[in-house]
Amino acid sequence: MSIVRKSYGERAKLSTNDLSKKMFDLMEKKQTNLSVAVDVTKKRELIEIADKVGPYICLLKTHIDIVEDFDNDLVEQLKRLAKKHNFLIFEDRKFADIGSTVQLQYSSGIYKIASWADITNAHPIPGEGIITGLKSIGLPLNRGLLLLAEMSSAGSLATGSYTDATISMARRHKDFVMGFVAGRRLSDREGEDFITMSPGVGLDDKGDSMGQQYRTPKEVIGACGSDVIIVGRGIYGKGKDVVKEAKRYRDAGWAAYLGRIE
Amino acid sequence: MSIVRKSYGERAKLSTNDLSKKMFDLMEKKQTNLSVAVDVTKKRELIEIADKVGPYICLLKTHIDIVEDFDNDLVEQLKRLAKKHNFLIFEDRKFADIGSTVQLQYSSGIYKIASWADITNAHPIPGEGIITGLKSIGLPLNRGLLLLAEMSSAGSLATGSYTDATISMARRHKDFVMGFVAGRRLSDREGEDFITMSPGVGLDDKGDSMGQQYRTPKEVIGACGSDVIIVGRGIYGKGKDVVKEAKRYRDAGWAAYLGRIE
Repeated sequence: MSIVRKSYGERAKLSTNDLSKKMFDLMEKKQTNLSVAVDVTKKRELIEIADKVGPYICLLKTHIDIVEDFDNDLVEQLKRLAKKHNFLIFEDRKFADIGSTVQLQYSSGIYKIASWADITNAHPIPGEGIITGLKSIGLPLNRGLLLLAEMSSAGSLATGSYTDATISMARRHKDFVMGFVAGRRLSDREGEDFITMSPGVGLDDKGDSMGQQYRTPKEVIGACGSDVIIVGRGIYGKGKDVVKEAKRYRDAGWAAYLGRIE
Repeated sequence: MSIVRKSYGERAKLSTNDLSKKMFDLMEKKQTNLSVAVDVTKKRELIEIADKVGPYICLLKTHIDIVEDFDNDLVEQLKRLAKKHNFLIFEDRKFADIGSTVQLQYSSGIYKIASWADITNAHPIPGEGIITGLKSIGLPLNRGLLLLAEMSSAGSLATGSYTDATISMARRHKDFVMGFVAGRRLSDREGEDFITMSPGVGLDDKGDSMGQQYRTPKEVIGACGSDVIIVGRGIYGKGKDVVKEAKRYRDAGWAAYLGRIE
């Protein structure tokens, strides 16, 4: 049976990647495949949104390096909220450097990403050394990595043989690479289960002026076989009722999933 | 006459990009095409190395996000050293996200990269929106961008049509894109001058265990037509005499350049 017909709960049982197992488990338990991308520049606002959307998400996606008043207390508060609402944290760092550099960027500096982000992601562009480098830091801490196999922005170069090479790299590091950031399910090989997370999801808008393009949860989860919808400004943009929108996207994502597995 | 036969001084006069002009001018004046990549995790060490190599370099390359005790004073000290020794600063951020995100990552957060780094770089992978986003912040501040057209690490996916697409993007944004990070000169079109900077340069070692590969200044500047050699651990690695190594690489880079233009 194709992976897209299986429930998240079944996949939790079958997965060989520890963090994927944990992720599928909490998706099944909380009945949500929604990740909220909180792209705000103030600590207070980030915490506020995380606390509001917390009950409805499986994963909180951060860009920690855009927060102007970042401090260690922000990390502590995020960890506390993750525990309170049972979600994982995904720092969308998009690592894209050679192995020895990403080791330091992931473990050190002001942010010490590996110490608090359950999941991070990387572009495969530098070659396999980027995975080896990140894995040396992340695997002992039970972290997981997503590879950017595709991007939702206009004119992205992550297509064709680039995407294929990304899948091959992931297959060689299944202990650490839990899946892909991509617009659609990329592999459906028997006995293999890469989780797929898709950004660029919106119920109301079609895109922005800088090349970002949006699709609906039904397209992404249903037609394209992705597992997690990543929603940003659609939930906390100007004038939005954050809780109401989070529920609305959670419901839309979950309905699309139920329609797919039934 | 091919650009690789022209002196940096002539190219300063002909360039249509303001920051390239400034860069070529100071290279000619200081007689150096050496950039030192200072990949250290302590502020004090970063400042110390920058001050020592300052007289011999055209460009100081930083990974600001690996510095554990980063603060605003570090930025002030780097700016002071750049003035004292007449070099530019290149934050090797490798931006790799969509336009609206990189705008924030470049201008905001703890680091405010656009406020102090003359040059930064980006992967073209998300499509042209990444350039538009960065340009909206950087151009008004007279900053310049390098696109990562190739990488020196083993198994890099930045090859072939990916590299070609990068060159096309650069041509559409010559006001902001000053050139490429690449292993070799990529374009030699009449009336066009993209500066080429090459990492992975070493006189003694062949590579590291995570896929980084090294070439000599003569290969990079002479045979491959690059303009700037980027050297890291070869200069300040364990047991090295930093000043002596900086001079040695400066001399090797400059000799390769003189051999090329004569």
